[in-house]
Amino acid sequence: MKKALVLQTDFGNCDGAVSAMYGVAYSVDEELRVADLTHEIPQYNIWEASYRLIQTVAYWPKGTVFVSVVDPGVGSTRRSIAIETTTGQYVITPDNGTLTHIKKMIGIKAARIIDEHVNRLPNSGESYTFHGRDVYVYTGARLAAGVIDFAGVGPKVDVESVIELPTVPAVYDGEKVKGTIDVLDVRFGSLWTNISRENFLQLGLKHGDRVEIEIQNETRIVYKNILTYAKSFADVYVGEPLLYVNSLDCMAVAINQGSFARAYNIGTGTNWKLSIRKAPRIIYE
Amino acid sequence: MKKALVLQTDFGNCDGAVSAMYGVAYSVDEELRVADLTHEIPQYNIWEASYRLIQTVAYWPKGTVFVSVVDPGVGSTRRSIAIETTTGQYVITPDNGTLTHIKKMIGIKAARIIDEHVNRLPNSGESYTFHGRDVYVYTGARLAAGVIDFAGVGPKVDVESVIELPTVPAVYDGEKVKGTIDVLDVRFGSLWTNISRENFLQLGLKHGDRVEIEIQNETRIVYKNILTYAKSFADVYVGEPLLYVNSLDCMAVAINQGSFARAYNIGTGTNWKLSIRKAPRIIYE
Amino acid sequence: MKKALVLQTDFGNCDGAVSAMYGVAYSVDEELRVADLTHEIPQYNIWEASYRLIQTVAYWPKGTVFVSVVDPGVGSTRRSIAIETTTGQYVITPDNGTLTHIKKMIGIKAARIIDEHVNRLPNSGESYTFHGRDVYVYTGARLAAGVIDFAGVGPKVDVESVIELPTVPAVYDGEKVKGTIDVLDVRFGSLWTNISRENFLQLGLKHGDRVEIEIQNETRIVYKNILTYAKSFADVYVGEPLLYVNSLDCMAVAINQGSFARAYNIGTGTNWKLSIRKAPRIIYE
Repeated sequence: MKKALVLQTDFGNCDGAVSAMYGVAYSVDEELRVADLTHEIPQYNIWEASYRLIQTVAYWPKGTVFVSVVDPGVGSTRRSIAIETTTGQYVITPDNGTLTHIKKMIGIKAARIIDEHVNRLPNSGESYTFHGRDVYVYTGARLAAGVIDFAGVGPKVDVESVIELPTVPAVYDGEKVKGTIDVLDVRFGSLWTNISRENFLQLGLKHGDRVEIEIQNETRIVYKNILTYAKSFADVYVGEPLLYVNSLDCMAVAINQGSFARAYNIGTGTNWKLSIRKAPRIIYE
Repeated sequence: MKKALVLQTDFGNCDGAVSAMYGVAYSVDEELRVADLTHEIPQYNIWEASYRLIQTVAYWPKGTVFVSVVDPGVGSTRRSIAIETTTGQYVITPDNGTLTHIKKMIGIKAARIIDEHVNRLPNSGESYTFHGRDVYVYTGARLAAGVIDFAGVGPKVDVESVIELPTVPAVYDGEKVKGTIDVLDVRFGSLWTNISRENFLQLGLKHGDRVEIEIQNETRIVYKNILTYAKSFADVYVGEPLLYVNSLDCMAVAINQGSFARAYNIGTGTNWKLSIRKAPRIIYE
Repeated sequence: MKKALVLQTDFGNCDGAVSAMYGVAYSVDEELRVADLTHEIPQYNIWEASYRLIQTVAYWPKGTVFVSVVDPGVGSTRRSIAIETTTGQYVITPDNGTLTHIKKMIGIKAARIIDEHVNRLPNSGESYTFHGRDVYVYTGARLAAGVIDFAGVGPKVDVESVIELPTVPAVYDGEKVKGTIDVLDVRFGSLWTNISRENFLQLGLKHGDRVEIEIQNETRIVYKNILTYAKSFADVYVGEPLLYVNSLDCMAVAINQGSFARAYNIGTGTNWKLSIRKAPRIIYE
């Protein structure tokens, strides 16, 4: 049976680039089901491309083929790769760190290099700047349509060789859990950290308890305050900040119906640290 | 036969949230047809979500299932509801006013509460912040795919209990028709009022006649001028304002190839009043 | 077999207009495959609509039906037209210049006027402002679904009568190739010219050679500099400008991982001229 093909790029939807990719996919097989992850990845932001994949891949059926094209090195010697996740989906992408979170959090079962002698859009030989159209979506469509199987992508390579961006693991030091702000829930301004729910639960807290949150950027403390660990947004007032478990089962900080990121000018990356501890008792004498 | 599933949210398309919903839908049935209404509803703007539904629902085939997730109360006791319109489409949404225009203008035939013991994505029990993925689209996909029928959504409730936001009806006072500016045609800056064509026709005017438009915000008159009641934009000069019947069969005001809303800083809501009367004769002596 | 239906408009995705068009398409045939080119054409920008079509049409299977609605003259006497390209796709659009690039670069095999007595959404007779929904997508869906064939669109007209916007051809004067900046690769800020690779190759240059680029707007020289003719972005440093062959096989200018258009405030249109010559030798004495 034909599998879904899901596209992610940093091309935006303003011009015809994404639609040309759709056209190539349907030219491989007019009965394919093609859908989008997002095309609004900030240009060249491989980290965010990696994160958006982990946010979605496992919600799709086994056999679904993702094609992710955030490719600052187009035309360089970076490898073109296809992997199978341990949850049974495929991802085709330049091997530039786009698979970081999948490799760390879900796991990669097998990896193959795209053989462009076989898997390249016919008559596209003179174009060197749009591998998304000429190589990646063409290969992805062939895999989703069953024209080739996974082995047909090209020669096998060691899973360990798949490139990872540097990450900093969250830690529990007996008093605090400390992690990094990995990504924003862009539209709602929430901060998504790499602190998992299991990590956090070592603090021995439950819904409704108060926590102290500290956010640090390089040497500067950007935010330090006490707020509620809430089950959901509706458990705090409109405009009140909260700590909660996000849809990836990690700890997140938000303002109910406001934007935490905009309120305090918070960014993302490994130099944005966030720590959580049980709130101190505050006693007036 | 399988029915289309149409999604509306205020999530935007920048991250993976909408794509995770698509993935859940295809996991229910890989042969579903999934499409978008819009994901650009301004955050928490239930009114606009309600309006965009009325703008589209009846153009889709009978049996189409809409899932609308603008949900400021996620995690609260607000009900999760599914309704059947009198035109034969289904809408699944938090019961927070999203069904206001459908209830008033098309009509609701039957309503049911979602039974989350049956209709909830397996293994999503620890997530309390993304009901769009875990409950709404999962239920919608099951209904569209025929896994459940409408009764399978959950227990029936009284149609009258479906929550409505307050609206102000348009009136004709023998001289003027008066209404409110409900929504903007965002990209073109036209004002869409709640004055229906039938209401307007009580003024006894025909295409090409001149009308006087007055726009009032609270106590302030924001615009008062004479313009043409035109059949279409091409009947006035480029840059000229006009009154016309919009694609919902209601009266609208625009500037041909300009933005009326931006030209005069016009907003929307029940405190933005617009009245139309036959233009007075202007006599110089 | 059913063919894909591909929609392009200047409506944006913020409201329900595009979704109403999808609904009409599925009402014609629930098994159609509907996709988007883009809905972010700047309002009324027929030139860009024409360019986005040439960027994508030929990548889609033969028989694909494109519906393009950028229609400043809605309600005027402009014709509604359907054409077949020499590469075997169909385009349905107001005849206002949207077919300029297809006519010049791919070629039109046959053209027909839409007969609105047959090809108009039933019961849409009182709406004069949304032909995209009531006429164009309805006709396109019927053609894609095989309800009508191409002759069923309406009476044949002379291909030569299809309206073209004025263009200025690129020329080689023995020393320079001169052309115009037709369009931007919006998100990456690259300049796409009308100078084809064949035109350029008359200069006798090869990858790695240095070229002198001059950009002129009306009487003003906006940019004049020497840069590399590169095979791909990866052949120059990050931040370095380059000349390359774009995905349409025309010459383009970019800054690797920067925005050339934003860096030098470059626009598009026939009054933006770009010339390329072999770089002079620069000798210090």
